[in-house]
Amino acid sequence: MQTNNYTKICDHARKITVLQSTLALLEWDQQTMMPAQAAHYRAEQITFLSGEMHHLRTDKAFGGLLQETVSSDWLCSQDADIQANVHELKREFDKATKIPHSLVERMANACSLGQMTWVDARKTDDFAKFLPTLKLIFDLKREYADAVGYGESRYDALFDDYEPHAQSSKVAVVLRSLCDSLVPLLQKIRDSTDRPNVSVLSRQFPTADQATFGKMAAEKIGFDFQRGRLDVTHHPFCTEMGPNDCRITTRYDEVFFNTAFFGILHEAGHGIYEQGLRSEHYGLPSGKFASLGVHESQSRLWENLVGRNRQFWNHFFPMAQSRFGHALNDISVDEFYRAINDVRPSLIRVEADEVTYDLHIVIRFELELAIINGELDCADLPAAWNEKYEKYLGVTPQNNAQGVMQDIHWSAGLIGYFPTYSLGNLYAAQIFEAATQQLGDLDTMFAKGDFVPLKNWLNQNIHRAGQTLEPAELIRAATGTELSHEPLVKRLTQKYAEVFGIS
Amino acid sequence: MQTNNYTKICDHARKITVLQSTLALLEWDQQTMMPAQAAHYRAEQITFLSGEMHHLRTDKAFGGLLQETVSSDWLCSQDADIQANVHELKREFDKATKIPHSLVERMANACSLGQMTWVDARKTDDFAKFLPTLKLIFDLKREYADAVGYGESRYDALFDDYEPHAQSSKVAVVLRSLCDSLVPLLQKIRDSTDRPNVSVLSRQFPTADQATFGKMAAEKIGFDFQRGRLDVTHHPFCTEMGPNDCRITTRYDEVFFNTAFFGILHEAGHGIYEQGLRSEHYGLPSGKFASLGVHESQSRLWENLVGRNRQFWNHFFPMAQSRFGHALNDISVDEFYRAINDVRPSLIRVEADEVTYDLHIVIRFELELAIINGELDCADLPAAWNEKYEKYLGVTPQNNAQGVMQDIHWSAGLIGYFPTYSLGNLYAAQIFEAATQQLGDLDTMFAKGDFVPLKNWLNQNIHRAGQTLEPAELIRAATGTELSHEPLVKRLTQKYAEVFGIS
Repeated sequence: MQTNNYTKICDHARKITVLQSTLALLEWDQQTMMPAQAAHYRAEQITFLSGEMHHLRTDKAFGGLLQETVSSDWLCSQDADIQANVHELKREFDKATKIPHSLVERMANACSLGQMTWVDARKTDDFAKFLPTLKLIFDLKREYADAVGYGESRYDALFDDYEPHAQSSKVAVVLRSLCDSLVPLLQKIRDSTDRPNVSVLSRQFPTADQATFGKMAAEKIGFDFQRGRLDVTHHPFCTEMGPNDCRITTRYDEVFFNTAFFGILHEAGHGIYEQGLRSEHYGLPSGKFASLGVHESQSRLWENLVGRNRQFWNHFFPMAQSRFGHALNDISVDEFYRAINDVRPSLIRVEADEVTYDLHIVIRFELELAIINGELDCADLPAAWNEKYEKYLGVTPQNNAQGVMQDIHWSAGLIGYFPTYSLGNLYAAQIFEAATQQLGDLDTMFAKGDFVPLKNWLNQNIHRAGQTLEPAELIRAATGTELSHEPLVKRLTQKYAEVFGIS
Repeated sequence: MQTNNYTKICDHARKITVLQSTLALLEWDQQTMMPAQAAHYRAEQITFLSGEMHHLRTDKAFGGLLQETVSSDWLCSQDADIQANVHELKREFDKATKIPHSLVERMANACSLGQMTWVDARKTDDFAKFLPTLKLIFDLKREYADAVGYGESRYDALFDDYEPHAQSSKVAVVLRSLCDSLVPLLQKIRDSTDRPNVSVLSRQFPTADQATFGKMAAEKIGFDFQRGRLDVTHHPFCTEMGPNDCRITTRYDEVFFNTAFFGILHEAGHGIYEQGLRSEHYGLPSGKFASLGVHESQSRLWENLVGRNRQFWNHFFPMAQSRFGHALNDISVDEFYRAINDVRPSLIRVEADEVTYDLHIVIRFELELAIINGELDCADLPAAWNEKYEKYLGVTPQNNAQGVMQDIHWSAGLIGYFPTYSLGNLYAAQIFEAATQQLGDLDTMFAKGDFVPLKNWLNQNIHRAGQTLEPAELIRAATGTELSHEPLVKRLTQKYAEVFGIS
């Protein structure tokens, strides 16, 4: 009887996933293939299927089955996959059904309006125009937190949508320590006179060659093109629409090497995670990524810890030279390595390097946390933003368009999302350290172009678990440690001391 | 109240279309973009959404609303769009609900098995292996006809799925007359010694140049790439997934010009029809193509009556010469025109020219009609097939793989589909004759590359009607005549007398 109920639960969850994966195709196609004038009807298709999905997610009979199963003796005697599936689906169901329909609608409207207003206000650098909608969105998010409930803080209810089970108070402590280490490191880097020559990265790199080279690298590190593809979009992303259908995108800049190449490695890292989930569990929590933070750890690991590694380029640089000819012929691998590892504080998060990236995140995290906790008013955001940029990065925006209005996130209601970027960097450093301890000298493998041991280790220790472990448990199981700033700080300090000749 | 019911009916019909158009994207993507290993899950997505669509199509409340509305006084006072929508949706609902669920399942299984068996049996030229499944499919189709009901003949119930309201007895008379005229015309062509030099079409035509040239031509005749796209597939097709999203495909043969170019014109003709429907009626019968026969008339018209026209090439040949350089430099437009209009009887329908194409169709139509009427046994198909090929086309297949097993249609349960190809050719000739009468000298316009008057005439007289007229009414309204073999025979006789120097 209980086994039968569990089968019904899984069937229902898989139906939800069929709709979700179909929505993923509708959205991917919209970004990559759809004719210009088809946008309006595509929105109708997406709205309809999203509505159907919401019905399935909040279906009462489904809730009843979950309720009956979650507290049964039967469940206690089942394996980890089954237990995780029931508990996680129950948790999602409870969350979905706690949100009043009117709030869902008001949030959808506010975010739709928010994004339009944001685009306009940013164009004309008019924060006052953005403010009322922004305030409304934060207010609705507080209402949302109250509706779904929380333990320690309202912010955790929002955070939980992206990083299940995370506690912002714990994350805040780690990010504070990270910040306290990065600010002085950045100062030393700024003081260094031994700077890389970055102009080489702005030579001519024909798009077709970048595409071939990037695809080759993605394949080499382990992205399976029999189970995925690479296309072009304005905003790069990774999406999946089936257990064997993961699609990544990038954009090409003919006169800047980094955009596409490291973008491809980043998205391929996300893709390798998706492709490393157990496909027979597709559609269930046991076959789904653990959290956005863990997802980001995989993209960051391949982009930065592998792709910006010295030995990686010992393998790839000769190929790059032969592919891009005159653009790289007069450059040594060492000069190239230093160029792709330049560090300089900037105003724009998406262009930030490894050292400054997390400082951008800490600023956003602290600000949104303060607003949700009622300690900061939205109207005071620009001043608070600029003050923190000066304090952490030593730069001050000339206007709000390149300051507080640079990211789409808040206008789209993505509050509690930013810290997952830094969690990704922190987890990546911890995971890489653990993998190195267990696998031995990864550098020697990279120099030979051998990425299989690392990929297999990640498959085994990170990917295959799906959601059978909470993110914190997963990191503990894989690395033997709690969330910590130390591996990241240690790595960055060592690496950039060498790159910038800091003693 | 009735107006309210009508709104509900339309909303429901549009929901069905949202699912249908989403299925179209899933299927288009499967043929064009999907990674190799994603097929299995794609099938699950398609099965699930098809099931949801079937639920909506046979929804009892929807049927109740239709029943109440169809016979109401209210409907009599409404415009043609509203009347057509209610009547056509009622007709579709009745048909869908008359088929027992068990029959739907048995047919789906038989056709799935049928296609697999067909692929195997064709490879090894083993008709005996194919026979049991083929027989089962024909038996189920008879059962289907009995379930949905019919007037004159069982075959009409099947025919109606592709050509609504068509009567096979009437079509049979016209096809017989067509056949009686084409057979002697073909004989004269075969006897001619003044034959085109077709070898020019088998020179080198680089794929990228074919794509550019074909796309340019498609755009020129009126296919709107802001509302559509062109991609590559093994089997070319045209599909739509929204009022402004029509996608056509082709395949390229580097050493044969005709495949892609005339394929693109053909699919663009289908696409121009879709793009010419009233987009504000999308999702309702008033915004949907009239029948497969009418659809095929549009593809054939642009492919053959325009694309194989002498003056069309007066405009395009200089461009082709400049695009394909040495491949066409030593050829005159007249030699090229004759080459693309070669006629020779062959065994294979899909490679057939304008004169022999309908003879291939008549053979299939006569055979499937005889089987459905119980006058021919499936076991006797190969002999009957070969006999007709010898009689009509003067050629005899060496084996059943290139004979009775060449088409996928019967194995896929597409019985009653073949005659829509010939209806397309017949309608196209009638429509072109009427357009010429009303617009004047189309040849002069084609020579100048001006296809706008013809396209606008088709928009006005064929496309915009949607399903507000039955196909026969639509042809009558546009051409002033009933379905007839005469315009087609007249055109082919005149044209090919000139091409082959027949007095």
